Amino acid sequence: MTQSAKRVVLASRPVGEPKPSDFRIEDYTAPPPGDGQVLLRTIWLSLDPYMRGRMNDGPSYAAPVPVGGVMEGGTVAEVIASNNPGFAKGDIVLSRAGWQTHALSDGKGLAKIDPKLAPVSTAVGVLGMPGLTAYTGLLEIGKPQAGETVVVAAASGAVGSAVGQIAKIKGARAIGIAGGKDKCDYVKNELGFDDCLDHRDPDLAAKLKDACPKGIDVYFENVGGAVFEAVFPLLNTFARVPVCGLIAHYNDTEATVPKWAASMMRAVLTKRLTIRGFIVGDFAARHGDFLRDMSGWVREGKVKYKEFVTDGLDSAPAAFMGLLKGANFGKQLVRVGPDKA
Amino acid sequence: MTQSAKRVVLASRPVGEPKPSDFRIEDYTAPPPGDGQVLLRTIWLSLDPYMRGRMNDGPSYAAPVPVGGVMEGGTVAEVIASNNPGFAKGDIVLSRAGWQTHALSDGKGLAKIDPKLAPVSTAVGVLGMPGLTAYTGLLEIGKPQAGETVVVAAASGAVGSAVGQIAKIKGARAIGIAGGKDKCDYVKNELGFDDCLDHRDPDLAAKLKDACPKGIDVYFENVGGAVFEAVFPLLNTFARVPVCGLIAHYNDTEATVPKWAASMMRAVLTKRLTIRGFIVGDFAARHGDFLRDMSGWVREGKVKYKEFVTDGLDSAPAAFMGLLKGANFGKQLVRVGPDKA
Repeated sequence: MTQSAKRVVLASRPVGEPKPSDFRIEDYTAPPPGDGQVLLRTIWLSLDPYMRGRMNDGPSYAAPVPVGGVMEGGTVAEVIASNNPGFAKGDIVLSRAGWQTHALSDGKGLAKIDPKLAPVSTAVGVLGMPGLTAYTGLLEIGKPQAGETVVVAAASGAVGSAVGQIAKIKGARAIGIAGGKDKCDYVKNELGFDDCLDHRDPDLAAKLKDACPKGIDVYFENVGGAVFEAVFPLLNTFARVPVCGLIAHYNDTEATVPKWAASMMRAVLTKRLTIRGFIVGDFAARHGDFLRDMSGWVREGKVKYKEFVTDGLDSAPAAFMGLLKGANFGKQLVRVGPDKA
Repeated sequence: MTQSAKRVVLASRPVGEPKPSDFRIEDYTAPPPGDGQVLLRTIWLSLDPYMRGRMNDGPSYAAPVPVGGVMEGGTVAEVIASNNPGFAKGDIVLSRAGWQTHALSDGKGLAKIDPKLAPVSTAVGVLGMPGLTAYTGLLEIGKPQAGETVVVAAASGAVGSAVGQIAKIKGARAIGIAGGKDKCDYVKNELGFDDCLDHRDPDLAAKLKDACPKGIDVYFENVGGAVFEAVFPLLNTFARVPVCGLIAHYNDTEATVPKWAASMMRAVLTKRLTIRGFIVGDFAARHGDFLRDMSGWVREGKVKYKEFVTDGLDSAPAAFMGLLKGANFGKQLVRVGPDKA
């Protein structure tokens, strides 16, 4: 009744870009479930940019992963043994078991997934946290109106692809920014954005201006850096900037008190901008609306999604390092185990 | 039926701090009112920081004053001749006649003032634009809750003094920042703020931290500069920053595309801050609520106000240059003419 298992722990806190030695893969033996517990077998591990923040010490909206601790993450898992009356062997659940092949749980925070409704991997993708981030940030803060221009970066990614497609559903123009021709073609031709620009293009600012002749009304900020600087001068009066990520800065090693506020704040004032940070948990109350709308849109083909899968838990560190550089093309998933054991 | 008159025009666009030669005082003859017109005699001219922006060319939320044009401004005036059936000789009106002793108007944009309700100067002060700015920015964007901490700079001024007093009415703690001991004493002892700090104190950041042991939930931004930098690290998760002015930067000569976004935006994200610019006209729909609430609070003594008066239109340029440096103590007014001619 014990189980050979594997986990990825944080070996050391990265300075700047994470490197392979910041992770350590450990073999261990998963014990049988105790009273009230279930034993989970991971099928899918979701890799997401926020995880870079958990590798750092210091204040943020969530506690850091301790050095030596299992890397955090959302998973789709099968219950393979249960001493909890709420769960049966064979149940598929959404959990936060992290980067490991097996995990014990007392059932708290687990949500059952119905495999008949959609591929179970969507529970950590378009119908999960990334989809909910796109849906709530865009609709609760961005509030795009018909005819307005919405810009989103990482446009082929899990969040960005949903943002642009929801903007289109709401009648807005959607302009994506992505890395490279293949992603841009996909965003335009498959996802139906009005345009998509390559952030590696040295003329990004000029091309973005051409692509947004009426300026930008909503900038969904998940990137920061050069993209933000190209977007900022194009923001219209009353533009809204939901901020859910800053992947361009996650490896920054300096964090100083800002000394530069004047020019940005002047634009906030004269253009009456709204810049508002959020994390997906802030809008937990919208989860029901999200599931209803998003699953409908996916069914009707109005929202498409793309998955980018690497194989085996061992691949997680490299896949995550690649994700921070945009090496993935679509929602980054790790196939940790088969659908059925 | 013609009238000797005087006006202050913009002689040249200031570079940095305005200087006396940027203004020119002109004598002229005000013609009698034509068909449908009224002739106004200015009693009070309001001087406000936003006027610095009107002296610049370049994009903002309002058109600049042309070189040679009369400086813009709100006034309280008496109708001294009328060919407009809506107004009678002797009516007191709120107008935007600018920096001049007399003005013609077709009646559009004039609002009658009842001198029995309150001193007429309050129509450009606590019951006018500055009061409405404080009321709407604090209540519509800042949304202070009982027990929260609200910080406002220029706390003895027209807007700041109202912000802190309204915050107190709503059950919040109010911390002011002002220039010098006299103003701070007034803010604490007369206006009833919980504390007031001197922005000239080299230990401002440390003292502000002591004065806000539970952090800052609302920062009403009308100043920018060093005060913003002291406030920013103390903002709590979900803090709100209504931005209505940046007087510390109005004389800046550089306006570059921001290159510094990372650290501020990181805080916006992790603390889920809301930073939102506004001007008073954005909340015109709240004017009725404002007048009802604010006139009640003034009557009950819950909101006090202080006026700082210089005498004669000729004093306006120097008074305005002083206002930008905080030389005024209370709402800056120019007494252009007597209450009754």
